[in-house]
Amino acid sequence: MSFERVAIIGLGLLGGSLGLAIRENLTGCTTTGYDADPKTRERAAQLGLVDSVKETASEAVADADLVILCVPVGAMADAARDFAGSLPAGAVVTDVGSSKQSVGEALAAALPDHTIIPAHPVAGTEQSGPDAGFASLFSHRWCILTPQEDAPSDAVAKLTQFWEGLGAKVEIMDAEHHDLVLAVTSHIPHLIAYTIVGTASDLEDVTRGEVIKYSAGGFRDFTRIAASDPVMWRDVFLNNRDAVLEVLGRFNEDLSALQRAIRNGDGEKLHELFSRTRAIRRSIIEEGQDDARPDFGRKDH
Amino acid sequence: MSFERVAIIGLGLLGGSLGLAIRENLTGCTTTGYDADPKTRERAAQLGLVDSVKETASEAVADADLVILCVPVGAMADAARDFAGSLPAGAVVTDVGSSKQSVGEALAAALPDHTIIPAHPVAGTEQSGPDAGFASLFSHRWCILTPQEDAPSDAVAKLTQFWEGLGAKVEIMDAEHHDLVLAVTSHIPHLIAYTIVGTASDLEDVTRGEVIKYSAGGFRDFTRIAASDPVMWRDVFLNNRDAVLEVLGRFNEDLSALQRAIRNGDGEKLHELFSRTRAIRRSIIEEGQDDARPDFGRKDH
Repeated sequence: MSFERVAIIGLGLLGGSLGLAIRENLTGCTTTGYDADPKTRERAAQLGLVDSVKETASEAVADADLVILCVPVGAMADAARDFAGSLPAGAVVTDVGSSKQSVGEALAAALPDHTIIPAHPVAGTEQSGPDAGFASLFSHRWCILTPQEDAPSDAVAKLTQFWEGLGAKVEIMDAEHHDLVLAVTSHIPHLIAYTIVGTASDLEDVTRGEVIKYSAGGFRDFTRIAASDPVMWRDVFLNNRDAVLEVLGRFNEDLSALQRAIRNGDGEKLHELFSRTRAIRRSIIEEGQDDARPDFGRKDH
Repeated sequence: MSFERVAIIGLGLLGGSLGLAIRENLTGCTTTGYDADPKTRERAAQLGLVDSVKETASEAVADADLVILCVPVGAMADAARDFAGSLPAGAVVTDVGSSKQSVGEALAAALPDHTIIPAHPVAGTEQSGPDAGFASLFSHRWCILTPQEDAPSDAVAKLTQFWEGLGAKVEIMDAEHHDLVLAVTSHIPHLIAYTIVGTASDLEDVTRGEVIKYSAGGFRDFTRIAASDPVMWRDVFLNNRDAVLEVLGRFNEDLSALQRAIRNGDGEKLHELFSRTRAIRRSIIEEGQDDARPDFGRKDH
């Protein structure tokens, strides 16, 4: 009933973690892998991220019943075309990209005769590359599938079972809605973090040394996010433009209102917002999506 | 040579941590404490945050050689006036507030005949209240002193020694410069975090449940900061208005430039910034100001 031969294309944080998670959780499932970068292939083989690292994408998918694309969203179409000629007829193709409308369209165009079920495990760290992977990355995290309406239901069921086998919780969602939700919960937070870290390093009157020394006042949390993979994130913003600009517009309105409140000394407005936002943190902790300990349980406590 | 009788006014996260840190690190130093909230006084006594909780601020400072104000920056002046009549002539007065120009002026006006050395330990968590305190809060963190030019150098030296005794590193700085540096490393990050959490909870097309479920994509980091004490942060923005508005102006310019880059599909500009911001994270970790482990070493890894 479930997938038995999984090909992973792209062996960075996500691809590597998938290989390790499959080995740890899915008995009887074998993995092949490929990465366009020869150094990453070599390192992935040393680390044993998959059962067998192949020299070409075509070799990696040749015997697969599930292919998972783990490359930046802007590289999905090329990666798919690279192995299109060798893909077995019945293989299901999926991915782990952070934007889903553009990826769904790109993969459908590159592989018109195959079953494609776009997916997005909402999990990751600020690190990247083959050394960053670990088997529990998806545990207790949500994985969103965005199949087209005409996608075969048995393939959707099998992919659901696959992700649940890795410890994830699965949700089915419309691709357009996914892109809006993730713009809020992931893309805009990254954009803002990148921006403020850039702003801080460009100020003339505050040295970089000062920014670093006094980062424990809040700034250091933003630098973690702003250390994420630059190519992955460039592609996210280029491929989820409309939703990102829409949410950014709302954020800018809200920030302008607070800016006015500060200028006018309107403490009541500030206090009202600052009180309201605590409830969301509590819910996130109750739902098991973050660590309840102060400062995320950083080691200095 | 060092302080022997320390009065702590305000027994929340900062005041409570100070009491515990003094007991753990400074042999021979006794502490008294007071909080305007009777429940906090009761809880502080149960927890033993200070050697003796007093029923009035005047009693708490009556025999002190150092008084540390640990109340929101907007409450400093009233808190100081409350005990002004009972303050021993030679006592040094300091504080832990996040803005320093306004606090320095307020305390100088309230206590014109005393030595005042404003201070700001750059440390804290998103939690607040007497139960949130812990003795190691200041360990390896920076504490910034902003004495006036005419402040007695022996008092500055003693306060430096005091903070170093609690495990902190001490820097002397001009109050105006402090307020600009902290606007960057602490105040604006908090303002932005509060804003995006507010924006997310106000969207019509994305439910609060979705925001919570998919928060591991980056948003959850912002909710930690946006769970900080509302009164403390209201006061910070009202009392560091000029520096906050100045840095916010720069942030808005930078964000607008990125917004244009996204709209125009300018991947090169996005990639350039996203690559540059990684270096700051590395420096913060090298300087011991954050945890190097992915995701801050949250427990799910």
